[in-house]
Amino acid sequence: MSSPPRIYIDAPLDEGQAVSLDEKQSKYLTRVMRLEDGADLRVFNGRNGEWRARLVQESAKKVQVEPVACTREQYAAPDLTLLFAPLKKARTDFVVEKACELGVRRIQPVMTEFTQSSRVRSDRLQAVVIEAAEQTERMDIPTVEDDVSLWKALDHWNPTLPLYYCDEAGEALPMAEVLSHAKETAAGLLIGPEGGFSAAERERLRSLSFVRPVTLGPRILRAETAVVSALTLWQSLVGDWRNDPYLPKTSNG
Amino acid sequence: MSSPPRIYIDAPLDEGQAVSLDEKQSKYLTRVMRLEDGADLRVFNGRNGEWRARLVQESAKKVQVEPVACTREQYAAPDLTLLFAPLKKARTDFVVEKACELGVRRIQPVMTEFTQSSRVRSDRLQAVVIEAAEQTERMDIPTVEDDVSLWKALDHWNPTLPLYYCDEAGEALPMAEVLSHAKETAAGLLIGPEGGFSAAERERLRSLSFVRPVTLGPRILRAETAVVSALTLWQSLVGDWRNDPYLPKTSNG
Repeated sequence: MSSPPRIYIDAPLDEGQAVSLDEKQSKYLTRVMRLEDGADLRVFNGRNGEWRARLVQESAKKVQVEPVACTREQYAAPDLTLLFAPLKKARTDFVVEKACELGVRRIQPVMTEFTQSSRVRSDRLQAVVIEAAEQTERMDIPTVEDDVSLWKALDHWNPTLPLYYCDEAGEALPMAEVLSHAKETAAGLLIGPEGGFSAAERERLRSLSFVRPVTLGPRILRAETAVVSALTLWQSLVGDWRNDPYLPKTSNG
Repeated sequence: MSSPPRIYIDAPLDEGQAVSLDEKQSKYLTRVMRLEDGADLRVFNGRNGEWRARLVQESAKKVQVEPVACTREQYAAPDLTLLFAPLKKARTDFVVEKACELGVRRIQPVMTEFTQSSRVRSDRLQAVVIEAAEQTERMDIPTVEDDVSLWKALDHWNPTLPLYYCDEAGEALPMAEVLSHAKETAAGLLIGPEGGFSAAERERLRSLSFVRPVTLGPRILRAETAVVSALTLWQSLVGDWRNDPYLPKTSNG
């Protein structure tokens, strides 16, 4: 019933081209995953698709991975960026994990006026997305940017792409309704901190032509719930949940 | 900026009819919430709307709540039932909290073949939903049923209502597409355990006329993510996220 373990490897993958893993990753595969010499596994590198592979013990502390055959082609998540205000550590990790599961291409932490948390370490979060990508069976790894101020993020936003902004405080249309008119297949989603945006931030956001305010229902959602809900709606109505690339072509147009 | 604290009280609410709280809830309000004699708060009971109220110290250990004015009318969440296979304790709590935030009316734990967790205590989960209802500003409290077997849940399901079943293993259409044809404004969502459903369960599910298999995109979602995603889609395309009852009527039809 269960598939072989799925591991991200930061090296080119090609048939018969064995990859030597460093001691840390070797130890993970043999001690944590308990894989033995000759074990089956699946590997991907975010560029060359997914490969069936074999583990080869290279020395006492190091193993190699030998790609056998490419079993799934490379497939990129849609061009979707999540901008979110960092929360406490465990909840930030949760948001980043879910963003990876839900198929964003880029994660941009933004510091806002009411953000309660200190800056995030993007290298630590990159480890979170790699593990999430292994689990969620995605073929690419989203990038996690260093945090920037909301103002800077807005200044650098490509103004031809819509930035959906979940606004619990003001008048806005339901997100599904707004997305049903979307023409652009690339976008950003901005989720604020638990305390919402400040008046100055809301004024600036509403003044920008590319910003599209949306609502997520009549109840107050926690920030991490809003992230999952907003990403789900975008993927379902605009992104790659519409035409599931892994489904047989006969079941959907 | 912040509103007065919002508390669930299990008693009738009417103007000037003070409600004596028991020692446990009195202690919570005075020690944990640090509310003093005369403090403003908001109370709701799931039946009589939300009330602005005043705290009155009744004795050393007990307080009363005096409703002053009804500030929001009673409003029921849509007729949506979540059926889910229990996970480990913290993740089950998470699912139940999110189901409350996302506006389900009823939560039904179901034991399946691959469910790894033992039975759940519905009284403990009821406490989780009350706290979530306070936070998410909803007016009613979802009910949490005792767990039952999947077979029994299916036997007792009202066959005139659709039961959307998230099937990661088989052919099915994207959930948003299936929901776009939904006519019924009451429904159930069934989310399986991490290991999916067994072959026998899938066969039974697919044989039932009211069961509608759906998919949630090309990546593998963790069970709790699938819960949030599926509830979001139903609320957005069928439920009360479409016509936000708290929005000014001019902003939406």
